[in-house]
Amino acid sequence: MHKEITSINNSFIKEIVQLQSKSRVRKNTGRFVIEGKREISLAIKGNYKVLQLLYCDEIYTDSNLDDFQTEIIKISKEVYQKIAQRDSTEGIIAIAASKNFSLTSLNLTSKNPLILVAEAPEKPGNIGALLRTADAAHVDAVLIANPKTDMFNPNIIRSSVGCVFTNQIATGTTAEIITYLKENNITIYCAALTASKSYEKVDYSEASAIVVGTEATGLSEEWLNNSTQNIIIPMQGQIDSLNVSVSAAILIFEAKRQRKFA
Amino acid sequence: MHKEITSINNSFIKEIVQLQSKSRVRKNTGRFVIEGKREISLAIKGNYKVLQLLYCDEIYTDSNLDDFQTEIIKISKEVYQKIAQRDSTEGIIAIAASKNFSLTSLNLTSKNPLILVAEAPEKPGNIGALLRTADAAHVDAVLIANPKTDMFNPNIIRSSVGCVFTNQIATGTTAEIITYLKENNITIYCAALTASKSYEKVDYSEASAIVVGTEATGLSEEWLNNSTQNIIIPMQGQIDSLNVSVSAAILIFEAKRQRKFA
Repeated sequence: MHKEITSINNSFIKEIVQLQSKSRVRKNTGRFVIEGKREISLAIKGNYKVLQLLYCDEIYTDSNLDDFQTEIIKISKEVYQKIAQRDSTEGIIAIAASKNFSLTSLNLTSKNPLILVAEAPEKPGNIGALLRTADAAHVDAVLIANPKTDMFNPNIIRSSVGCVFTNQIATGTTAEIITYLKENNITIYCAALTASKSYEKVDYSEASAIVVGTEATGLSEEWLNNSTQNIIIPMQGQIDSLNVSVSAAILIFEAKRQRKFA
Repeated sequence: MHKEITSINNSFIKEIVQLQSKSRVRKNTGRFVIEGKREISLAIKGNYKVLQLLYCDEIYTDSNLDDFQTEIIKISKEVYQKIAQRDSTEGIIAIAASKNFSLTSLNLTSKNPLILVAEAPEKPGNIGALLRTADAAHVDAVLIANPKTDMFNPNIIRSSVGCVFTNQIATGTTAEIITYLKENNITIYCAALTASKSYEKVDYSEASAIVVGTEATGLSEEWLNNSTQNIIIPMQGQIDSLNVSVSAAILIFEAKRQRKFA
């Protein structure tokens, strides 16, 4: 028999609502919320520890949850609707333990790593889209400089379709990440609308970091001053910039093409 | 002196609300709404006829609107808020005449056109993102097969950052577009997760159409059966698909790279 919660006034339920909405609460408790079957299974595959699994039996009718070897809690539909944020619901929600995203915990095993760096992405949805592309390209790491949110923001989890759990990620200040890249002899290629070198004319086969900034203001001076080579995606139409996740995809897949997708 | 509207019950204002929300009303009247300075100026540059220009003088303090040589209407803040859909408001809204997006009105001037085709994109935001990428790459045309909305949906205009006005666009059924491409000797490359040929191994220097489907179901059998060559973007991580606008950008820019961005 599973423990059961039927009241939205239950203190644990109230805490989950806080974990969903507040970065500070996630940080202080070292926990976060995962919605969706696929996302939960990618988190487990990525060695995240699931602390509790909540299911609504009116919606979730799938497999035996006891396989998950964690605390299983049955919740009423009302409680489920209180804590679920997504429209398309699968009736299952996990509470998991956070991971440390420090630069020192990065483990680059490749001799010539390919790294995606994004500086201060404006929206969680953009970070999620970058992580999804990074997973598909199987880059060695994704580094977020000066992040405006924690990586366990529900919108990042959703828009990354769980790729926040499949990528090797680190966050830090721009200065810290530049130092890290230099110490590891990784060449820095900054995407800049002022660059004179077209992105496909650069050789990304050695250890490379491709760095993208925000759509509105681009990369900071700090990045541009520490760039080995600034690169540009030619803009041949009327507009002067691309969505950051689109730019990153074009650059990362050009690097992958040069590396023969090895 | 400009005509002035201060009541949200004004019949013209009510009609604008309908034009914003209803595809059917846009179709029946041949008119649509454009929000934003940049978008309005791209529409004018793209030879759209602006029928009325509405401004709220409490917000819009820019240039002299009389240059626009169209009917100018001053509106109260209350009226503006009634018709504006965006959060970040610039105090200016245009009503414009629609264009015909039929295949027969396409005018391909390039000897070896590069065309982006999307089948039944799920969300207006995806169409907008595709149009933005297509503008940057300056493709010869964007064709939307079996569209689920008209191209003047406010979310398309917004997410395309006005590139719905800068691209040559046509819509039609999948059958009509396939016929058009074949009649014009344009090679059809369909993106498919079941394809065996990696996208970068194909030569896009001759007349080429790159065709993308939805994230959920991919392209229809009708497209796959009429494809010259199916192509795949290698997925090297845990997930099995990319966002449609990201896929399209990777494919289109590989074609552009091969064509030396000429």
